[in-house]
Amino acid sequence: MTDFDKLKKLCRLIRYDILTSTTEAGSGHPTTSLSAVELMTTLFFAGFLNQNDRMVFSKGHASPLIYSLYHAAGLISYQELMQLRKFNSDLEGHPTFRFKYADVATGSLGQGLSAGVGMALGMRLRMIEDRKSNNRLPSIPNVFVLLGDSEMSEGQVWEAIQIASYYKLNNLIAIVDINRLGQSTETMLGWDLKTYAKRVEAFGWKTIIIDDGHDLKKIYKVFKKVSSATQFLSHESLTSALRGPLESEKIAFASKPIMILARTIKGKGVSFLENKEGWHGKVLNQEQLTKALKEMGKVDLKVRGKIIKPNDKSISNFKFQASNYKLGNFVATRMAYGDALLSLGSTDERIVAMDAEMSNSTYSEKFAKKFPERYFEMFIAEQNMITAALGISKLGFVPFVSTFAAFLTRGFDQLRMAQYSAPNLKIVGSHCGVSIGSDGPSQMGLEDISMFRSILNSTIFYPADATSTFKLTQIMAGQDGLFYLRTTRKETPVIYGEKEEFKIGGSKIHQVKIQKSKVKSTSKKSKVLIISAGITLHEALRAQKELAKNGIETVVLDCYSVKPLDAQSINRLVKEIKNIIVVEDHYPTGGIGEAVADLIVNYKLKIENYFHLCVRKLPRSGTPEELLHFEEIDAEAIIKAVKKLS
Amino acid sequence: MTDFDKLKKLCRLIRYDILTSTTEAGSGHPTTSLSAVELMTTLFFAGFLNQNDRMVFSKGHASPLIYSLYHAAGLISYQELMQLRKFNSDLEGHPTFRFKYADVATGSLGQGLSAGVGMALGMRLRMIEDRKSNNRLPSIPNVFVLLGDSEMSEGQVWEAIQIASYYKLNNLIAIVDINRLGQSTETMLGWDLKTYAKRVEAFGWKTIIIDDGHDLKKIYKVFKKVSSATQFLSHESLTSALRGPLESEKIAFASKPIMILARTIKGKGVSFLENKEGWHGKVLNQEQLTKALKEMGKVDLKVRGKIIKPNDKSISNFKFQASNYKLGNFVATRMAYGDALLSLGSTDERIVAMDAEMSNSTYSEKFAKKFPERYFEMFIAEQNMITAALGISKLGFVPFVSTFAAFLTRGFDQLRMAQYSAPNLKIVGSHCGVSIGSDGPSQMGLEDISMFRSILNSTIFYPADATSTFKLTQIMAGQDGLFYLRTTRKETPVIYGEKEEFKIGGSKIHQVKIQKSKVKSTSKKSKVLIISAGITLHEALRAQKELAKNGIETVVLDCYSVKPLDAQSINRLVKEIKNIIVVEDHYPTGGIGEAVADLIVNYKLKIENYFHLCVRKLPRSGTPEELLHFEEIDAEAIIKAVKKLS
Repeated sequence: MTDFDKLKKLCRLIRYDILTSTTEAGSGHPTTSLSAVELMTTLFFAGFLNQNDRMVFSKGHASPLIYSLYHAAGLISYQELMQLRKFNSDLEGHPTFRFKYADVATGSLGQGLSAGVGMALGMRLRMIEDRKSNNRLPSIPNVFVLLGDSEMSEGQVWEAIQIASYYKLNNLIAIVDINRLGQSTETMLGWDLKTYAKRVEAFGWKTIIIDDGHDLKKIYKVFKKVSSATQFLSHESLTSALRGPLESEKIAFASKPIMILARTIKGKGVSFLENKEGWHGKVLNQEQLTKALKEMGKVDLKVRGKIIKPNDKSISNFKFQASNYKLGNFVATRMAYGDALLSLGSTDERIVAMDAEMSNSTYSEKFAKKFPERYFEMFIAEQNMITAALGISKLGFVPFVSTFAAFLTRGFDQLRMAQYSAPNLKIVGSHCGVSIGSDGPSQMGLEDISMFRSILNSTIFYPADATSTFKLTQIMAGQDGLFYLRTTRKETPVIYGEKEEFKIGGSKIHQVKIQKSKVKSTSKKSKVLIISAGITLHEALRAQKELAKNGIETVVLDCYSVKPLDAQSINRLVKEIKNIIVVEDHYPTGGIGEAVADLIVNYKLKIENYFHLCVRKLPRSGTPEELLHFEEIDAEAIIKAVKKLS
Repeated sequence: MTDFDKLKKLCRLIRYDILTSTTEAGSGHPTTSLSAVELMTTLFFAGFLNQNDRMVFSKGHASPLIYSLYHAAGLISYQELMQLRKFNSDLEGHPTFRFKYADVATGSLGQGLSAGVGMALGMRLRMIEDRKSNNRLPSIPNVFVLLGDSEMSEGQVWEAIQIASYYKLNNLIAIVDINRLGQSTETMLGWDLKTYAKRVEAFGWKTIIIDDGHDLKKIYKVFKKVSSATQFLSHESLTSALRGPLESEKIAFASKPIMILARTIKGKGVSFLENKEGWHGKVLNQEQLTKALKEMGKVDLKVRGKIIKPNDKSISNFKFQASNYKLGNFVATRMAYGDALLSLGSTDERIVAMDAEMSNSTYSEKFAKKFPERYFEMFIAEQNMITAALGISKLGFVPFVSTFAAFLTRGFDQLRMAQYSAPNLKIVGSHCGVSIGSDGPSQMGLEDISMFRSILNSTIFYPADATSTFKLTQIMAGQDGLFYLRTTRKETPVIYGEKEEFKIGGSKIHQVKIQKSKVKSTSKKSKVLIISAGITLHEALRAQKELAKNGIETVVLDCYSVKPLDAQSINRLVKEIKNIIVVEDHYPTGGIGEAVADLIVNYKLKIENYFHLCVRKLPRSGTPEELLHFEEIDAEAIIKAVKKLS
């Protein structure tokens, strides 16, 4: 028997907590928290959250509610709660990785459902694996996602909705808190729950409307129905299930993802807040608080509900295979990425891959063909893909996410937010720079290094050949964090042997011996250091060879680790060589050039001359060679620059 | 009488053009072009494109089709066409501003419908204005948008769909070329046109299905129906119309936006291409081309259709009003932005504003309240907002677009693409930096300067006070291009009088006179230049005052023009002052610090010491003061740094 009296008491405690903690904080979102109290209290404390289930609060500004729920569960103290939004408290204005019960940071609206999609995919995958190894029928956990109605306008939500239905994620349950009011105005649909339902059902979901999202009994009934449905269906489906719909033996999962649409009242429980505009993100002053608490009546401050924390999977080390490229062969680095991913996939089941319908360009298709269960086609919806990858990573999987570098800009907000979720994400952008050629500027990644550098704790690799790409991909897999690998469309020669070592913050020095008789100048002063990576490294090497013929000595540095840069090597080299040329296939700002400039200035390196060759003119269609030449980042331009200096 | 024979001939010519031009180019997307030949030929050449109508090719990879249409219209020559994708040709792989008949660049999928939304809003606005000034009933032009089916998976498309229905844009007509095949696999819905229709109708559109998108008569009938419907309805609606649904007197526009869903065949017209996987983005070799042309039969190379080019509106100068802030008063720069926008709005009807449901935080609400006709609430859907703004700008309006700086990252791909459309966009990001305080990192714009700097031809302002904000907002309005204005949440003192002048690439020098008796050191070597902007400028000024008390002289530079930086002034100052501190409320990379480092290195400025104070630790909730202190970008940190140097 469900104890509705206790649930009521818990709701009252949570309302008390929301109001007192936000007034104490002096800022926050009490009204948006109050509207979902009954929905969440029922979910949390009426037995619907099972072990291994996950809960995502997409409406992160309802953090006072989130924290209050965990206080009501006895997991945080009232003293902690009253530190809401204070410096040093882990209970921040919007939840981040610092709040240990949040899997993903939220606060930029419209991202939570995608995280839920990733988790639901991961749970299904884990279930399939469990089934294979144990030959038993494990139950599949659920993912619950609480959304606000305002965020339903974000395209990413519809990306998540469509992909969840495509993968028939019947263990994904979204709950929309439809309180009608946004920040500055009414939402587009207000309380028109029927239209929400029509839209969501058209996208292949089952919807359930709760006409009063504050009626505990009604809410209970709905969760009861939902939880039994998903339990039943997931067992059912297991009999034939292997994975999603992409492989030859298509599986018809018996059901659909579920969205609960609840009509609620913003500010519920406090008469002067209920359904009022102008209260978004505003807290009560002391006088108003007293009035509100008086309305509420007696609060049992000692009542506590019970929830179970999910298990965590520990991560063990990866095993790596050797690459096998012949020096001098022409292999595109995007192809080598595909090889490395395939190889990783065969040694470790945690590796999963996602692509935005570009797998035959990024070469994630190599993995997709061999491991269809662990490859998720995410179609052309980059935002959802990135957050879904974050979601699946929170179940212990290691997601590799690829598309054109240019289109990763579509997911910048999702990447930005991921950094507040202690992410383990491996992002791969192909077709970078003008060197892609005739497809034109819309397809050229020219801002991607800048974008990934601006994420505080990111690591960026931009390898020039197949061997380094292969090895750096392995390093990405084995190391926790947010990684970006930049690959090239064009085939480039293999320049490193299997025994070469690569590392985070590493680089490779290339020198060409010059016959003494040919040396033009012995002055160290005139020597030039050419710093480069990726496609332009080959231009630098060509220039180096050419220059050597004329007796001009240069040192070429392959800074395949763009972030962190190999400061030590640059430092050491610059002690001897005072002329620096940086050459990169990227727009001028935020790339390798500025990283080097920053290093020079910060380390007080004494240099004589500095040239930054990069993409300074709006590019256009043409052959790779024409474009490298047009932008003055080819061997010819490098030779010209070196000659100016030596 | 419509001459279907001529349409057929035109179709054949266009197919011929598509195939020959892509084979000649050696790359491109013939199959995706072939599927929409009949749809576009009918639209273009059967009299449905009227003067002032606009056409957006959202599926930009169908560029061979686009260019072939204009060849068939006699507007480009066959010689030009055969330069497709070649260097120096304006017929690029995906259309950019260089193709004079394209209003917006496309090629990153899912953006075109948003541009159409902007144009449709602009047309309605222009109609309302025309009606006011001429007291007549002008007809409203239509916007046609051709979409591919693959791009229907992009969330931005659904953002555009929902807002178009919200604003009842009955002059917006989308045509979806449903050829079933994506790049690497079948689309999620394949040829399930009914599900497309169900989804789109649930979002408030009218849909029309064409079961054979190659049947000219069927297509003609549909366009006939559509064009008469919109003409009729827009006249009808005019009788009561003033604008969209936001104002007090709500207007029920009689109809809905229309989406034509056409079942087509990828590669149509060439037997070995039709409906085949593996042909996306691939061209025919000479042998295959010969075979294909043979299949096609006789092509009339001389047949030409007729289209009418839209009118352009010329842009005249803006009139500016004076700002009126008292020195020393505390005014948030976001508030001053609101004032400036309001002022601009009263002097010029071309000014329009959009916001992502943050108008009461960004203060665009000042404009919204005064000019509800010219304010478009775009709700929480940033991607659509940015491209819609680009769209409306192409009708001669000057759009100001605002939301939190952090959330502008959501539209990076849209901003990136805008740069290939010769944009006139004014973007405003509020709540930048850790100085927003307790809301936490998800709400803090800390990568925004880096993002906007990486757009090649952008201009960035980051003013510190109300006066400079007011004046810089005016400069943005009066100048063509992509501008970004960074505003601050906190109130800051007014430090500039009405007579101060501001300009692109400008800066302001702040010095404090020190009594001679107090001067600690007269050595110029120990003098420090503090470069800053926005919120940290005030920290720098506080530090300067404090240091002056101790006899330590500093020069503070307000580089409100972050891009371009005032290289001249910095150059001049650094001739005398060899110690530089940059302090900014932004992550380390791509911001003011790297811009200055880049300048130092490129201009070979001889400096002694350099400190870059910025946000180096993942921020958290707290008061603005605590966070500025935690990140060591407050006056105290500046004083500490200066003392190390002097």
